[in-house]
Formats: sequence, C-alpha cells, structure tokens
Amino acid sequence: MTTVSFLEPVQEGLQAVERLMRLQAAEHHRDLNAALQHLLSAGGKRLRPALVLLVGEMLGADKERLTTLAAAIELLHTATLVHDDLIDGSLLRRGIPTLNASWSPAATVLTGDFMFARAARLAALAGSLEVMRLFAETLAIIVDGEITQLFDGPGLADRQAYYHRIYAKTASMFQLATEAAARLSPVTEEVVAALRHYGHDLGMAYQIVDDILDFTGDQVRLGKPVGSDLRRGLITMPTLCYLEMYPDDADLQAVMAGRLPSEERMDALIGRIRGSEAIAVAAEDARRFARQATAHLADLPAGPQRAALEALADYIVERDF
Amino acid sequence: MTTVSFLEPVQEGLQAVERLMRLQAAEHHRDLNAALQHLLSAGGKRLRPALVLLVGEMLGADKERLTTLAAAIELLHTATLVHDDLIDGSLLRRGIPTLNASWSPAATVLTGDFMFARAARLAALAGSLEVMRLFAETLAIIVDGEITQLFDGPGLADRQAYYHRIYAKTASMFQLATEAAARLSPVTEEVVAALRHYGHDLGMAYQIVDDILDFTGDQVRLGKPVGSDLRRGLITMPTLCYLEMYPDDADLQAVMAGRLPSEERMDALIGRIRGSEAIAVAAEDARRFARQATAHLADLPAGPQRAALEALADYIVERDF
Repeated sequence: MTTVSFLEPVQEGLQAVERLMRLQAAEHHRDLNAALQHLLSAGGKRLRPALVLLVGEMLGADKERLTTLAAAIELLHTATLVHDDLIDGSLLRRGIPTLNASWSPAATVLTGDFMFARAARLAALAGSLEVMRLFAETLAIIVDGEITQLFDGPGLADRQAYYHRIYAKTASMFQLATEAAARLSPVTEEVVAALRHYGHDLGMAYQIVDDILDFTGDQVRLGKPVGSDLRRGLITMPTLCYLEMYPDDADLQAVMAGRLPSEERMDALIGRIRGSEAIAVAAEDARRFARQATAHLADLPAGPQRAALEALADYIVERDF
Repeated sequence: MTTVSFLEPVQEGLQAVERLMRLQAAEHHRDLNAALQHLLSAGGKRLRPALVLLVGEMLGADKERLTTLAAAIELLHTATLVHDDLIDGSLLRRGIPTLNASWSPAATVLTGDFMFARAARLAALAGSLEVMRLFAETLAIIVDGEITQLFDGPGLADRQAYYHRIYAKTASMFQLATEAAARLSPVTEEVVAALRHYGHDLGMAYQIVDDILDFTGDQVRLGKPVGSDLRRGLITMPTLCYLEMYPDDADLQAVMAGRLPSEERMDALIGRIRGSEAIAVAAEDARRFARQATAHLADLPAGPQRAALEALADYIVERDF
C-alpha cells in the first residue's frame, strides 16, 4: 500500500486544508509569506490533517469544521517545528534548510508565534469549546515535554521515560487530531475514547519508527547524520533495546553519564546498535502499538475511512528496517 | 487618586488571579518555576486583570470564570513580553534584567511558549467559545503587529500608522480584557460594544502616555535610556507631534530616512523634543482618548466598579509630564 492509497478517501478534503493553510499567510509581508509557503511546502505527508478528515468523515462531522480543525492542527505542528529548530539549533529538517538557518532568532520566533496565533484562531473557528480545550492542553503537553528535556537533560534511560517523552513530542498531537475530530462528530463518549486511543497508539508507533529510521536510514534520505539523536546524547528506542541486551557497553555507559565519546567511537557505537537485534526488537514494539491502534477501531463503522485508518497503521510500521 | 484606590473594589479578586497565575508554574522544573515567579513578580500593576474583574463584576459575570479569564490575559501579556525582549534583544524591562539577559534563546522561547500554552488553556477554561475567538484574534493582531515592525521597519511617520501600531501592541489587549469580560456577562451586544470601545480607547491613552514617559521620565525610573524608542529609529507620538511643528529638523529627517545620527546629535534631538510643545500636544491626545473611553461608560450601571473604571482612565493621563 502506498501513501496515496490511504489518503485516497480524503484527497479532495486535504486540498481544501492546504488552501486554508496557505490563505493564513496571504496578505502579509513578502518575506514572511515566502517563509510560510516554504515551511508549508516542506511539510511532509499531512498525516495529521488526514487523520482529522478520515475520523470526522467516518463519524459524520461537518466537512467545513473538519477542514478548519485539520488546518489548525497542521499549523500548530508546523509552528512547534519552527521553534524546535531554533531551540535545537538545527539547520536542516527533512534535508531542507530550516528557517533558523537563514533567519535571525527574532524572525524565527515571530514566524512560529504567527503560526501559533493562526492555528489558535482556526481552532476557535472550528466551533467547539471542548476541541479548543484539547488544543490548548496539547500545546501545554508539547511545550512541557520540550521544557523538561531542555532543563532536565535527556533524563532516565528507561522505556517509561522514553514513552512519556515521545507522547509529549508526537503522540499527543496525533491524539489531538483523532480525538478532536471525534468530538466534532455526533458520537458517544466511548467512540471519542476509542479514537483518542487510536491516535495515541498510532503516534507512539510513528515516533518509534522515526527513531529507528534515525539509525537505519541513510544520511542523504534522512537529511541528517545517521544516529543524530544519540550523537547529541538522546536515548531513543533502538538504543534502549540495545542497552537491555548489552548493559555493559562502555561507550553507551559514557553517553548515559553525559560524556559523549569521540566521533570515531560514536560511529562505532552507532554501528553496533544498527547491526544488533535491537532494531528488530524496537520495530516489534512499534508494531505492537500499531496493532493496538487498529484494535481500537474494531467497533467503528466499516467503510473506506476505517479501512484507510487501518491501512495507515500498517503503513507506518510495515517497512523493512 | 492612587493606584490602590481604583483597584480597591477588586483587591480580593486580584489576589485570586495572582494565585491562579502562580499555580500555572508549580510542579515544574525548579529553574523554570523560578523564572516564571520572577516574570510574574516583575509584572507591574495588573491593569489588564483589574479591567477584567471591574467590567465583569459591574455586569454580573461569574467570579470564577472572570478569575480564569483575567489570569489567561495577564499570562498572554507576560508571554508576549518574554518573546518581545528576545526579539528586541532587550536586557532590562522595568529596570529588572529580562529572562533573555541571562538565559539562552532556547530557554527564553520555550518559557514564552509555556506561558502561551498556559494562557490558552486558561482561556479555554473560561468556558466561552466567543471569548476564545477574541483571545486567538488578539494574539494574531499582536503578532502581526510585531511582524510588520520587524519586516517593514518603523514604517510611515504619521498618526494613522502610529495608531495602528499601538493598537496592535497595547490597545488590542486592553480591548480583549474589557470585551471578553463583557462577553462572560448577561448583557446586550450594545453593552459589549461599549466595553470594547472603552478598552480600546483606554489602551491607546495608556500607550501614548508610555511613549511620552519614554521622553520625559528619568533613566533610573524608566530602567532604560531616555528616548530609547527614537534611539532605535522608532517614531512615537511625541516625535510625531514634534515633526508636525518642526518638519525640517535635519536630525529627525535623518532618523526617518533610516540613518541614525551620532549619539551626541541624538541626545540633542531628544532634548529638543523634550523641551518642545510636542509633549503637551501628545499628552492632550492621550487625554482625548481617555475622555472618549470614559464617555463609553455613560450608560453602564453606576456603582463602585464603574467609578473605578472612570478613575482608571483619569489616573492614566493625569500625571505631570
């Protein structure tokens, strides 16, 4: 299954979302407009808007409100990326220069704030107080996660801490997309809860896969060096699984103690993790989350949208690592 | 009349707002918590929360929702100050070191984002979709104003452009405070509009006075050099009034052409503006806005809150410049 096929039922809807997002940047200063178009163009697969549309259309929500919500969530996502890149000092994202690589911190902060403001405005226009609460709550979770990481450092090297971190970073926004779309629909609390769990588990699977690809991808496709997380001391799922198998690896012990080894030794450590069973164990964990996600859909109305949501969960974890 | 007397009717309410704001920072990393307490302590007179409480209590809104709204607006205000200081590279605000003076841009951006997130969450908890819309709209207006200033530079030296700028920077948030509080109250659209206009005009008066004090205050009380706006090329009301009287001042012409004169010449220019009738003309403009603000209260219920709102408008413009 290709990306296109599970996006098929919402192809037209996604185009409306795209138009609404780009409209937010219109009538503004030329440079800002160009930056926003650049950010939106570099914006990846639009998974979050697709989730909003698939869930909402499956459950009978109003199309216009769904479009507004989907654009709000994708803009919120993009805004957090802009500030993230500034915070991390990243110069590339998906192989494309970040705003922060060519702009002053001032312009970067403001562009992120601009997108936050537009996202909040669209979220309010979606017309549900409960959705607005979820939206604000999710923003708080994401920022809290970043603050914890910045102030407390990488934290404990255990699965619980890792899961907590990727929930704040990624799964919370997937959960927002699916739960908020359900909230805009004429359904029971049980259905809303099922969609919240689906979004959560899908987001966890997605981030674990992303963290695996950081080890197994190649530098050109990643747009950044292999093992970039570990290189800055961040312990993700593959490293955790490797640690469970080889608790005495001296280089890894050094990383965990906050002493980054030489580049040569780091390359070798990353090579050992790549070549170990840790990759398969981590992938199995991602698949477990994807299966859980799909299981939450069991009682929902069958049809092209549900099939697409199931396919999306498969797609995320089905590649060869 | 002192600050205390017009805050008298809402003294207790303001303490509840203070507690709610400080609660937002609790249970977090020690350094962040300390920073937030520092920011909130440096937070000035709490005019915006006082406006929310005075308006809402005058019009019969629920106290708890007013407290939540007041805290949301003051946190939003503080968040914009944090990002502002980063954007301007300011090292002092009200004579106290800014966050940005001692922290990395990353920590400063995130602390601002944290306060935005908390503000949005509280705004959503105030329980009115219309209020949430106003809140998001105001954030958009403020950020748009900053973006215009950053990208387009100081812009035209005329009153229209200046009014537009101080609306975005200051009056929009005063307007949010009074309009949103009215929206939480059982009143007609006419009353909401009257309070919106009151907040707008009060905010305009407030910022014009602030811009006058930038010329007439002393460096110690201002916590920054006299004429700091003009020193970075920003034309505010006193300079505009001076320009209307002395259109041929060569140093001012140079500033307007984007060529900042030497410090010596700048000192002399600031001295000429301070010593001119421009200060009195600018002050009269502020008083005009304050009178307009008070006029909007004419049909509202008489009582201690309305008296306080009138006194507040007087207080803002009554000092000797």
